[in-house]
Amino acid sequence: MSGNTLGKLFCVTNFGESHGPAIGCVVDGCPPGLALDAPDIQKELDRRRPGTSRHVTQRREPDQVEILSGVFEGHTTGTPIGLLIRNTDQRSGDYGNIVQTFRPGHADYSYWKKYGRRDPRGGGRSSARLTAPTVAAGAIAKKWLATEYGIQVRGFMSQLGPVNIPFESWEEVERNPFFAPNAGVVAELETFMDELRRAGDSIGARIEVVAENVPAGWGEPIYDRLDADIAHAMMGLNAVKGVSIGAGFEAITQRGSQHGDEITPDGFLSNHAGGVLGGISSGQPITVSLAIKPTSSIRVERQSITVEGEPTTVQTFGRHDPCVGIRATPIAEALLAIVLMDHALRQRAQCGRG
Amino acid sequence: MSGNTLGKLFCVTNFGESHGPAIGCVVDGCPPGLALDAPDIQKELDRRRPGTSRHVTQRREPDQVEILSGVFEGHTTGTPIGLLIRNTDQRSGDYGNIVQTFRPGHADYSYWKKYGRRDPRGGGRSSARLTAPTVAAGAIAKKWLATEYGIQVRGFMSQLGPVNIPFESWEEVERNPFFAPNAGVVAELETFMDELRRAGDSIGARIEVVAENVPAGWGEPIYDRLDADIAHAMMGLNAVKGVSIGAGFEAITQRGSQHGDEITPDGFLSNHAGGVLGGISSGQPITVSLAIKPTSSIRVERQSITVEGEPTTVQTFGRHDPCVGIRATPIAEALLAIVLMDHALRQRAQCGRG
Amino acid sequence: MSGNTLGKLFCVTNFGESHGPAIGCVVDGCPPGLALDAPDIQKELDRRRPGTSRHVTQRREPDQVEILSGVFEGHTTGTPIGLLIRNTDQRSGDYGNIVQTFRPGHADYSYWKKYGRRDPRGGGRSSARLTAPTVAAGAIAKKWLATEYGIQVRGFMSQLGPVNIPFESWEEVERNPFFAPNAGVVAELETFMDELRRAGDSIGARIEVVAENVPAGWGEPIYDRLDADIAHAMMGLNAVKGVSIGAGFEAITQRGSQHGDEITPDGFLSNHAGGVLGGISSGQPITVSLAIKPTSSIRVERQSITVEGEPTTVQTFGRHDPCVGIRATPIAEALLAIVLMDHALRQRAQCGRG
Amino acid sequence: MSGNTLGKLFCVTNFGESHGPAIGCVVDGCPPGLALDAPDIQKELDRRRPGTSRHVTQRREPDQVEILSGVFEGHTTGTPIGLLIRNTDQRSGDYGNIVQTFRPGHADYSYWKKYGRRDPRGGGRSSARLTAPTVAAGAIAKKWLATEYGIQVRGFMSQLGPVNIPFESWEEVERNPFFAPNAGVVAELETFMDELRRAGDSIGARIEVVAENVPAGWGEPIYDRLDADIAHAMMGLNAVKGVSIGAGFEAITQRGSQHGDEITPDGFLSNHAGGVLGGISSGQPITVSLAIKPTSSIRVERQSITVEGEPTTVQTFGRHDPCVGIRATPIAEALLAIVLMDHALRQRAQCGRG
Repeated sequence: MSGNTLGKLFCVTNFGESHGPAIGCVVDGCPPGLALDAPDIQKELDRRRPGTSRHVTQRREPDQVEILSGVFEGHTTGTPIGLLIRNTDQRSGDYGNIVQTFRPGHADYSYWKKYGRRDPRGGGRSSARLTAPTVAAGAIAKKWLATEYGIQVRGFMSQLGPVNIPFESWEEVERNPFFAPNAGVVAELETFMDELRRAGDSIGARIEVVAENVPAGWGEPIYDRLDADIAHAMMGLNAVKGVSIGAGFEAITQRGSQHGDEITPDGFLSNHAGGVLGGISSGQPITVSLAIKPTSSIRVERQSITVEGEPTTVQTFGRHDPCVGIRATPIAEALLAIVLMDHALRQRAQCGRG
Repeated sequence: MSGNTLGKLFCVTNFGESHGPAIGCVVDGCPPGLALDAPDIQKELDRRRPGTSRHVTQRREPDQVEILSGVFEGHTTGTPIGLLIRNTDQRSGDYGNIVQTFRPGHADYSYWKKYGRRDPRGGGRSSARLTAPTVAAGAIAKKWLATEYGIQVRGFMSQLGPVNIPFESWEEVERNPFFAPNAGVVAELETFMDELRRAGDSIGARIEVVAENVPAGWGEPIYDRLDADIAHAMMGLNAVKGVSIGAGFEAITQRGSQHGDEITPDGFLSNHAGGVLGGISSGQPITVSLAIKPTSSIRVERQSITVEGEPTTVQTFGRHDPCVGIRATPIAEALLAIVLMDHALRQRAQCGRG
Repeated sequence: MSGNTLGKLFCVTNFGESHGPAIGCVVDGCPPGLALDAPDIQKELDRRRPGTSRHVTQRREPDQVEILSGVFEGHTTGTPIGLLIRNTDQRSGDYGNIVQTFRPGHADYSYWKKYGRRDPRGGGRSSARLTAPTVAAGAIAKKWLATEYGIQVRGFMSQLGPVNIPFESWEEVERNPFFAPNAGVVAELETFMDELRRAGDSIGARIEVVAENVPAGWGEPIYDRLDADIAHAMMGLNAVKGVSIGAGFEAITQRGSQHGDEITPDGFLSNHAGGVLGGISSGQPITVSLAIKPTSSIRVERQSITVEGEPTTVQTFGRHDPCVGIRATPIAEALLAIVLMDHALRQRAQCGRG
Repeated sequence: MSGNTLGKLFCVTNFGESHGPAIGCVVDGCPPGLALDAPDIQKELDRRRPGTSRHVTQRREPDQVEILSGVFEGHTTGTPIGLLIRNTDQRSGDYGNIVQTFRPGHADYSYWKKYGRRDPRGGGRSSARLTAPTVAAGAIAKKWLATEYGIQVRGFMSQLGPVNIPFESWEEVERNPFFAPNAGVVAELETFMDELRRAGDSIGARIEVVAENVPAGWGEPIYDRLDADIAHAMMGLNAVKGVSIGAGFEAITQRGSQHGDEITPDGFLSNHAGGVLGGISSGQPITVSLAIKPTSSIRVERQSITVEGEPTTVQTFGRHDPCVGIRATPIAEALLAIVLMDHALRQRAQCGRG
């Protein structure tokens, strides 16, 4: 089956290529009656938008969303919502020297192997640009979850390469281009990024996403567990190489007497479970961590082959994110919101309003 | 949608409760013509079977599989394969004291919140016993992948709590009850487990699964990327709290000039990508890591509440795995095989045989 | 995708072959809390069971259903319900002379073309025997719809070959082996069938199914309209060659001023729409008609070819239904119930309880 | 699940409302390498376009399609194809007097019951205008089927109200606005329609669709049989009240010795099966019949109620099709092509190229 639809009840069908006429998505399954307008969606797209700081790709896309359907007199109708974002700032010329080669670490090679053809324009379908429609759809989910359940979905960067970023406050997150929840570390991050840009290299990052006020009971065992669907959505995000919930990889060394979150009449005493027990939400905050790998499009010269199989070297010029993780936070939030909304509807179907 | 079906073209529909009459699955989508008999499946079930060492749960289930349909004269017919495993060794009495309480870290609480009813018998649907049908289905996938593509799917334990297990050989994996690829460390693992059992506690583990000879080109971007579906299957496995591909969480601190796997005419020079690029297989070995949390069913006394919300303590007696990770390896292999087979069929549909 | 699952939220996964060890299904998505036991299901199976009159196949199968999972202390748990029916009365020998040939009008030929192999035993997967699991699943749906909404799903035969059967009463339907709603015509039907059996031939039939008390608002336009899903389920039933809703094919010659059902404060003045408007239930009774073709397995000699392509003739002996339509009523009811339950859950997801 | 996606491997996700900014679809699953451009699609849309004769609605929409993605240098890339059609000729004013009432026979009532809100503009999502994206997607399927298998999908009108239209030639179909395969009857049809328009009433019709050169073996028993999926697609088309395959409702009175299509080394001797046996294509032409009901939007005064439940009468003015069946042929062709392409891909997945 074509893999461009996410979700089973709240479905997002994504289309578009980085340098084609437009990108967008169809959001199907949003219940009727939700107050929605283009600014609701634009707000989230603007958080993700390239060209907003010197630390991200310098491609300047307005990313203006147009609502084509599904909204009437300011409210969703229950019919599919078509969202369109025109591409304006393509520079296909920047990709001239990679037409015949493959960037190490990039999807170039595997796409060629799969489809038997290359769309060399800016990564085509594999480009991170295709996360914009996801963010647009996530804006709808975020609003619906907040309206229906008071759920809040927020994320931040907890590590940039070797630099650890301790959490200080949510307010700080929106005040710097890194989505870092800590004002004091921003200068260090900027210095690090400037050095990286001069070196023409890239770096990885770690992102945290949290959903609060999620009712207990969401998740569809045994295969569509809530954490399984979250992992599916997150690992599907460009550049993600690892996903964990709650204690994650630290649970390996924990004993049961330490890991199991004890319960009192006033609530849980800890949250190693990350808000998911047996694949079903427990009512605790859902905490997700993502490991983001460094970008493949770097100026550093690397060994590769041509499409004929001859050895060559590759350098990538152009306007690329030295750290894809810097813009990942709003996308991870969108994905978490989309998965949660899908599960909210599934819980309604199976067990009534949860 | 009911979440008990895994896959889109090669579908596994799982049913059963730990202490009900039987567990099993329906495997739909296996192409006709594969040589298959019950021993093929039994072999994998036996690797997973409880009661095979003192380090796992002492519940003794023969786990004998019966093929109900889909096979004729020793070959698959292309019609659904019904697999049945009768439960024989239930001891519902062992669960008497938890009927009114919730085990910290266990699905008890969230299942109650979701369904509004308790099936207190052995964890009901949340029990790890329900991984047996998954392993049975995985046996079919393993055989088909090997027959069609020469693909080999193997796993091992790389860490037991604080004890690191360096990889020595695949042969070693089948010679000890830990699926540890290292003979020299087994004694240390056994000592550790004996101490744990005496303490009535539990521990986590780290499992690696590897698929070799997977052709390049499998995966359905942008949402059903191969790594996304792998993460979905793995995170859905009981007790898994983290999933990573290739370099995983180590990619956070890697530079692009280090992480990107260079390509020469003789192949790749490294495999930080873990065999998946842009969500599509690259032809390199697919390497997956799982973080398994410690079991919730322990003798150590823990704080909890009753179903009426009153404070209480919980101790779990009975025949439980002190380390669920010990038996996870064959299940993780089965899940990886199932996902790969699903993607093999999807690639055939979209792009011809890959 | 493997085509053995019906439904999107209330899913029925069917497995088994006519002469294999067993047939059955997994019913996934039934909400928790429904009172259910084996007799609820057996009652419907018995209505369908072969060997209950001289007018249907003389194969004697007890069709005893066993509930393998999903029910605890007399109520559904919300987890998958596994249903098993063992085959006992197979006579593979009756099919000896068709191994190398194809029965005209039968699926033999097309199955061979699809799968490249023959399961000559009693039609294998194409056998009408595989409607038994559907009826079992339909029993669950019928009960849930009745309990939740007071919905009643009933059917009857309205035509047997050339013999028209005017509707007199629902009570009459259960009193004769034809599911005919008219006592006065039964003798004529029996005479007709006796003659047919002597001639070794078969005949078609027309079945009506009606669902009453269905709330307005069910259906998921534009592709999963309620009537579309009903048509999908019904046309998928063995031997069905036509499906219509309401006025059906009579609507061709109707004018809008006649066809459109007028509305008054007391309700609709007619029901040409058959209870479905724009693909969504209107609250009126949903009326469905099925055209059933005559059985292909007849004693009359017919031209065919061997698997090598040589001309030959075919006669089918054994215990076959001279009119498949005679037992179709309970199956059509089951299918309508399954589709309605699926849509009830979908409506709950999208728009709350409807 | 949101019901706006058709197909499982070749998926069409439809969006838009009749009087919204735009309508369109996302076509996902088209294999790479198919030569495709906008004229290929426009050609089919023009056959369906309103305002092309005095017998259809006088709303003048250019229905110009724009390809937003999925095509590069004249060939499909294997990635989703976004198709956009802007609405230009909306006249919301024509619907003023129905805002508070429901047109008998129209989806107005059931949509209101389902969603709890009215989009009174031109039928909103229930409008037949939403068949345009389906036709656009069907154009892609038609081309692919023709290119890969030489399959031809064609339809015609066989009956307009009481007027029977005997088949004379395929060439005639494209020469008159009725898609009638018979030149001699056109004058009678025009006279009939003129009278109908003066009366302000509407009429039903019967459409036939045929697919030739379909290989044997397509279809996924037991629930996703080819005929079942065809019925699903067709019954989902606006105004369809009945679907039949081959002999259809005539099979009711046929004996098995007459209905079963005999086979010789040179092929089948008849085609009562309509090209589908046991839910799988037999290699014979697939013949489908549709019963189309008369339009609900008529000038004849009819009884209805207001949204408050008060009795009233309704008359519909504006630019409506007096016979929706007149433009149904290209849409029915598109639906048949979409279903066939979906099954072609499913056959490739399960059994290799068929």
